[in-house]
Amino acid sequence: MAKGNAVIGQSGGPTSVINQSLVGVIQEVRKSAHIDRLLGARHGVRGIVNEDFVPLNNVPEELLERIAQTPAAALGSTRDKPDAAYCEKIFASFQKNNVRFFFYIGGNDSADTARIVQELAAANRYDLQVFHIPKTIDNDLRVHDHTPGFGSAAKFVAAAIMGDNYDNASLPGIKVDVIMGRNAGFLTAASVLARQHGEDGPHLIYVPEAPLSEEKFLADVDRIYSKKGRCLIAASEGINLPNGKTWAEAMSSNLEKDSHGNIQLSGSGALGDHLAGLITKKLQAPGGKKLRVRADTFGYLQRSFPGFVSETDAREARMVGRVAAQYSTDESRREGSIAMQRKPGEKYEIETIFTSIKNVARDTKHLPAEYIQDGNNITEAFKAYARPIVGPLPVVGTFDELKK
Amino acid sequence: MAKGNAVIGQSGGPTSVINQSLVGVIQEVRKSAHIDRLLGARHGVRGIVNEDFVPLNNVPEELLERIAQTPAAALGSTRDKPDAAYCEKIFASFQKNNVRFFFYIGGNDSADTARIVQELAAANRYDLQVFHIPKTIDNDLRVHDHTPGFGSAAKFVAAAIMGDNYDNASLPGIKVDVIMGRNAGFLTAASVLARQHGEDGPHLIYVPEAPLSEEKFLADVDRIYSKKGRCLIAASEGINLPNGKTWAEAMSSNLEKDSHGNIQLSGSGALGDHLAGLITKKLQAPGGKKLRVRADTFGYLQRSFPGFVSETDAREARMVGRVAAQYSTDESRREGSIAMQRKPGEKYEIETIFTSIKNVARDTKHLPAEYIQDGNNITEAFKAYARPIVGPLPVVGTFDELKK
Repeated sequence: MAKGNAVIGQSGGPTSVINQSLVGVIQEVRKSAHIDRLLGARHGVRGIVNEDFVPLNNVPEELLERIAQTPAAALGSTRDKPDAAYCEKIFASFQKNNVRFFFYIGGNDSADTARIVQELAAANRYDLQVFHIPKTIDNDLRVHDHTPGFGSAAKFVAAAIMGDNYDNASLPGIKVDVIMGRNAGFLTAASVLARQHGEDGPHLIYVPEAPLSEEKFLADVDRIYSKKGRCLIAASEGINLPNGKTWAEAMSSNLEKDSHGNIQLSGSGALGDHLAGLITKKLQAPGGKKLRVRADTFGYLQRSFPGFVSETDAREARMVGRVAAQYSTDESRREGSIAMQRKPGEKYEIETIFTSIKNVARDTKHLPAEYIQDGNNITEAFKAYARPIVGPLPVVGTFDELKK
Repeated sequence: MAKGNAVIGQSGGPTSVINQSLVGVIQEVRKSAHIDRLLGARHGVRGIVNEDFVPLNNVPEELLERIAQTPAAALGSTRDKPDAAYCEKIFASFQKNNVRFFFYIGGNDSADTARIVQELAAANRYDLQVFHIPKTIDNDLRVHDHTPGFGSAAKFVAAAIMGDNYDNASLPGIKVDVIMGRNAGFLTAASVLARQHGEDGPHLIYVPEAPLSEEKFLADVDRIYSKKGRCLIAASEGINLPNGKTWAEAMSSNLEKDSHGNIQLSGSGALGDHLAGLITKKLQAPGGKKLRVRADTFGYLQRSFPGFVSETDAREARMVGRVAAQYSTDESRREGSIAMQRKPGEKYEIETIFTSIKNVARDTKHLPAEYIQDGNNITEAFKAYARPIVGPLPVVGTFDELKK
């Protein structure tokens, strides 16, 4: 007999596979009878408070499979970061709608919201099971080996850099590509997978974890350009100066902040144009000629490009949704995050563990030091970590191979 | 018996399928004995003048097929626009190397170079056959129904806008996406293919051919946002003001120019940030609240993203290369561009015609008026034109379909 209803919501920046997790929960919940109505909250916590729900019990399977392949949050997402009063409203909505299960798909901020609501329920002796389902292209959740959404964003970035490397070889110059990742360098690091042949870029990779001075940046670019006659740079939007400020902060103190207090770096070409401008101003081509310098900011495409996901990522995103729904049949599972762990051994195999949400919420993790080399490159160890998550990349070739 | 050697070169902005045409020529030339050595010029005309050639007769088939799938010019490209003296040097290199066939893959500027060199040869009674093989994501060559490179760039743009539409629906706000196309709106127009369901963006599409005032832009955005609570805008990098100036010119008179005298618009987030800033400054959300406005500039990814080409585009790019090589066996074909034409009828079928290079060189074509609606939208007629070139797009779904 069902003990009540369930709510599922999606939160934070969307990914290409966040709907896989949603569909995983929906399909698995249908298999057992422990949940009465499964309600999809429109725009996360906002939909819970406003009781704006999509009934999910009877969505046709054919539509579900199409939604699973659709990027961004099909239920709508939110950037709201609930305070205590907001969490009270969420809890009140749960009580009113006899919600006994809460599935929340999101990153560390969303996990924290889920944790607070679960504590509120426990304090009120209200029977509520809370499941955090991971999602973030930043790949920065503690405990989790990696997070759904990262593999597909990383595949997009690696492929984009592969293509841009050949573009840069065609029309040589200096190219700066700015990649998402405000605090964690995982996604920018994934650009290293673009290197297929000896001379391939990215020739320089800058992550937030390795502070970078203007002097080092310019010296690096100058050295590569002098040697190769071109230079492809992958820089995180969140790169830091040695004084602890971000390049973006130093560049402008007027940047917009979102409701989490985070500075808005994406969706703006400002940092890329700044880096390109710095090179144009400070460096010269041989003979004092003007350098050809360009910048692109990959922007939202990294998280929302359809039809080009990592198959591994899509499968794993579905799986963590399914596992969350399976755990919900066990009343002893009061609260937890579904975390993927890599089994020991050569072969890439994943198992999930159920870890308390507090181990995942709030604080995030950073790109480990062993993955960073000389402050401008990424190691083979990172490649080994990331390759199975990203999966196969496009097959390419160059006439340079004839020289071998 | 071979009458001499051949040179093939690639020129202008690269595309995702420009190497398909190169490989088409190489493979077809191998079938007949009319050409002795096939020489690939590194970086177009520059490689001809510098006699920097890659011998292409014996490149392994396996490598050729990988190169065909690789974006950007495998031989290297150039932005050099040869003047009379430069063309003399090209002709001198041809004489010296007994070059009797010249295959040049490029857009209208490259066609013009090929034309001048051919005239020089004719004036000197030097036996030279010259073939222009079309390539441009801008799709702006006269006579040609469409050009190789456009279909793949259009597929990338349409898919990117599809994804961004769902991103924008997830986290509602106003989003500006700036798309390549300095003078011709074909690529920006292709964003219309992203609309799969009733509420889907892009809600506004701006092309260079439809002059746009600040007032109309803001009124359009305000109207859509008031109605839908969100707005996705696809704007060409080359949009014009009613006074004939481009938005980019009006925004800044300090923009860098390339060696063709073209203003550099791509590879910079400036126009997108300008449009977003204008909205933020002039419009307000209901209740006087601040609008969530973001901008992305798709940049080089549009022309160089690997693994996501239009199959039709790839096939046609190979085909025009093959056809050029076939024509070269016929001594009566002195000079011409290989132009695709659509056969009459419902079914999409392509035939090639051989048209004098002067019909293609220099002047370009624009998006026809019948494809533009109300200065902010693209018609069904354009969709019918573009769909077969772009091919199938990713399959997606939304819970809104349940409302039907």
